Amino acid sequence: MTSPMQPAFDALHALLGDRFTTGTSDRALHGQSESHFPDMPPDGVAYPETTAEVAGIVSICTAHGLPVIGWGAGTSLEGHALAPHGGITVDFSRMNRVLHVSAEDMLVVVQPGVTREQLNEELRATGLFFPVDPGANATLGGMASTRASGTTAVRYGTMRGNVLALEVVLADGRTLRTGTRAPKSSTGYDLTALFVGAEGTLGLITELTLRLQGQPEAVSAAVCAFDDMEAATQTVILTIQSGIPMARIEFIDATFVRVFNAQNGTDMPEKPHLMVEFHGTTQSTREQAESFGEIVTDMGGSAFQWAERQEDRNRLWKMRHNAYYAARAQWPDVHAMTTDVCVPISKLAQAVTETASDIAQSGLPGPILGHVGDGNFHVLLLPDRDDPAQIAKANALAHRMAERALRLGGTVSGEHGIGMGKLKYMDAEHGAGWDVMTTLKTALDPQGIMNPGKLLRQT
Amino acid sequence: MTSPMQPAFDALHALLGDRFTTGTSDRALHGQSESHFPDMPPDGVAYPETTAEVAGIVSICTAHGLPVIGWGAGTSLEGHALAPHGGITVDFSRMNRVLHVSAEDMLVVVQPGVTREQLNEELRATGLFFPVDPGANATLGGMASTRASGTTAVRYGTMRGNVLALEVVLADGRTLRTGTRAPKSSTGYDLTALFVGAEGTLGLITELTLRLQGQPEAVSAAVCAFDDMEAATQTVILTIQSGIPMARIEFIDATFVRVFNAQNGTDMPEKPHLMVEFHGTTQSTREQAESFGEIVTDMGGSAFQWAERQEDRNRLWKMRHNAYYAARAQWPDVHAMTTDVCVPISKLAQAVTETASDIAQSGLPGPILGHVGDGNFHVLLLPDRDDPAQIAKANALAHRMAERALRLGGTVSGEHGIGMGKLKYMDAEHGAGWDVMTTLKTALDPQGIMNPGKLLRQT
Ligand SMILES: Cc1cc2nc3c(=O)[nH]c(=O)nc-3n(C[C@H](O)[C@H](O)[C@H](O)COP(=O)(O)OP(=O)(O)OC[C@H]3O[C@@H](n4cnc5c(N)ncnc54)[C@H](O)[C@@H]3O)c2cc1C
Ligand SMILES: Cc1cc2nc3c(=O)[nH]c(=O)nc-3n(C[C@H](O)[C@H](O)[C@H](O)COP(=O)(O)OP(=O)(O)OC[C@H]3O[C@@H](n4cnc5c(N)ncnc54)[C@H](O)[C@@H]3O)c2cc1C
Repeated sequence: MTSPMQPAFDALHALLGDRFTTGTSDRALHGQSESHFPDMPPDGVAYPETTAEVAGIVSICTAHGLPVIGWGAGTSLEGHALAPHGGITVDFSRMNRVLHVSAEDMLVVVQPGVTREQLNEELRATGLFFPVDPGANATLGGMASTRASGTTAVRYGTMRGNVLALEVVLADGRTLRTGTRAPKSSTGYDLTALFVGAEGTLGLITELTLRLQGQPEAVSAAVCAFDDMEAATQTVILTIQSGIPMARIEFIDATFVRVFNAQNGTDMPEKPHLMVEFHGTTQSTREQAESFGEIVTDMGGSAFQWAERQEDRNRLWKMRHNAYYAARAQWPDVHAMTTDVCVPISKLAQAVTETASDIAQSGLPGPILGHVGDGNFHVLLLPDRDDPAQIAKANALAHRMAERALRLGGTVSGEHGIGMGKLKYMDAEHGAGWDVMTTLKTALDPQGIMNPGKLLRQT
Repeated sequence: MTSPMQPAFDALHALLGDRFTTGTSDRALHGQSESHFPDMPPDGVAYPETTAEVAGIVSICTAHGLPVIGWGAGTSLEGHALAPHGGITVDFSRMNRVLHVSAEDMLVVVQPGVTREQLNEELRATGLFFPVDPGANATLGGMASTRASGTTAVRYGTMRGNVLALEVVLADGRTLRTGTRAPKSSTGYDLTALFVGAEGTLGLITELTLRLQGQPEAVSAAVCAFDDMEAATQTVILTIQSGIPMARIEFIDATFVRVFNAQNGTDMPEKPHLMVEFHGTTQSTREQAESFGEIVTDMGGSAFQWAERQEDRNRLWKMRHNAYYAARAQWPDVHAMTTDVCVPISKLAQAVTETASDIAQSGLPGPILGHVGDGNFHVLLLPDRDDPAQIAKANALAHRMAERALRLGGTVSGEHGIGMGKLKYMDAEHGAGWDVMTTLKTALDPQGIMNPGKLLRQT
């Protein structure tokens, strides 16, 4: 029996040869995620190499009414890149070239499949770097699509501020260029900003122009411990309010410290910690460290443990970036659920401590960490995979976190996005705004083929 | 004879009493602009005091198919707030309250009619300030709508980065809230960014939540002269590339210096100048000034003239902000045309010097200045009001500037926007993107009543 999709498959084969496949293993791979969702494989996977091929794929899918799902590195955490309605996954791994570096204009043009580690590797000799730094080695196309941020957003901003221009293939197969290489512009609707964070529901990004930063003359990093969460989070609040231009200020709770010690052989005291980094001139990083140190002392924090050498700093941030995998290794039989909220900085201490006491009451493991300089923190909820009561408890905890964030004037996701996991909060956060999103979506993708099942109201 | 608009007028009177008027003087006032466009008055002017009243006005206009035009301070430069199709101008001058200052979260909530000078006046005691600084004393609603920037954007960004959340009344009368008080969010389409820069064509902004900055511990400002434009602009390029965090770096050409000297009694050498400001700690501003000074010396610039005291700095920036009016006073009988382009920083010297030689050849007065740290500069073209040949020459000059900006990878407007004056470049700059803007516009305003004749393709 041939599939009703066979004509579309034939057209895709004609376009891409063996770079289009309906093979089981490719489909299975693109049906998995880092999230707690069950597998949802697509009907086929395409590996384009050019924008023209992407436009061809989308045109074929439009003609046959098939869903089109972009795939970067598949590290998103709310089921963003799964295929709940089947369709064709467009894997950007073969569009992974850095096309142009302009050191004079501090910008770079990349294909969407370039990963952040690859990009910074290729930039090393230029004295420039791309600052946005989610823990995972995500792609730039994926990071733009989830409006990602990470450890350095407190200083350098998120993908929102660091994407200067895009090339996008729309649902009708048209190719669009948004933005220019000028640092700013005031010529009409900000289409770049519309596609950043759209989770592939409005089009596929085929090229990105990104702002770069100069590698700082001096970098220093340190950790310090606090007796309780309240003291650690108050330190963050005071630091941000005092305007110290922190390059990184990360919170990890005592549970995560225990995990780090177990997995990395470190001997950090099992207390809440801040991990920080300063960027600037030798003089200005010293000034920053002194000002920050005064706040830490006032709040009863420990002396800094400095990571002096580049390799010590790399080890420190690698440990931070691997926190998620380290915790999963520590609790292997769990149904791991990460959740991400963001609150106004003045509400950070309240949000974190209320969350922590909620978790303590539940009896579940639920280590907390976060990019707290932005008021952004995550909990990794770890209910027993085979215990529905524990899973229900974890869901209730995540739910209360989201509600608390909204109550405190914040948002249900600082950086991970909506995907399928947070659809249930869109109404509460946006009200009429969610309907406006649907109006825009329908205008640009009337058939609803671009990543259906995500971000928008499900009808 | 009663106007066919009488039923709408009656409804508006019923809603607003004498805060709706069709009187000649109010209409005339709202039919003028700072641009070279002829007067285009609306049919009536409304002065709402609340969001509910704004929603009421828009609903009445929708029901009667009447254009609705927002009006802040009327300082926009491309005929943005004129009424080429008549209709009702909504003047926000009575919605001018600062609603809430949160020093802890470094944000402020304002009504759209608050002006930037009023806002910074009200913030003075808090130790915070709002950085976006167009020359004119514009309103925050107008500044958001044109995606304004100004002298400090090089350090603190434009309205794009400084608006955290909005309240907007849509064409169908719905009131929408975009964004939260959290510093970042990844929950769906960036509606805030969609309305910032939309020039009132998608809805009326009735409330803004803005990011604030801490008043710097130390501020210092200076001017220095260069023998030619090339040296001045190369200094800017090197300064930006070297990452010195300039708070302001403004270029003024010899003609503007002449105007300043004549109008302000200063005795600056009649050469191209840079006007700069440093923000930071005492130590870091000194470091910045030293690094910048080295570049100036290398490029053959003069020693700094420091503006030591607060009142000297105020005088300096007031002179800069009044440049436009000073030039108009110097050439009273002209048809003043300001034009604004923005290029990648590496192309700044080329763009400015080519523009200058073009102007020199034309024989017209055309002083140049700009927020050059962003690659952004303006020319004030001053053809004789009664000489059509000179006016044609000025139009040709402006046209070549726009084309040159596009050719160099830039944009036809860094900050003034499109209004009616730059519609003719939208196709060249955006291509399919302009059609996408129309699609979005039609989706949100199917009748086309929100500020018709501006920004979008005219049909
Ligand atoms: C250990 C770990 C740590 C993490 N830490 C952070 C963090 O600190 N900050 C943070 O923001 N996130 C973090 N994340 C989440 C994740 O890394 C980000 O969401 C990232 O942006 C996803 O990129 P990706 O390339 O993996 O995209 P994918 O997961 O492949 O896709 C993400 C979404 O973008 C769409 N998409 C992908 N490519 C394109 C394209 N070219 N055009 C259009 N749509 C496209 C997909 O359809 C999907 O909707 C973390 C994840 C893990 C596993
Ligand atoms: C001397 C001088 C110097 C200038 N310097 C700069 C500069 O350095 N940088 C810069 O960016 N600009 C500059 N400008 C231009 C101008 O100040 C800006 O465009 C400013 O943002 C306009 O604000 P406004 O309140 O006057 O708006 P208006 O001119 O009243 O309106 C501008 C646009 O916004 C719409 N609008 C107004 N209020 C609302 C609202 N509440 N909701 C929806 N739409 C609304 C109007 O319909 C119109 O389309 C300068 C102008 C002058 C005269």
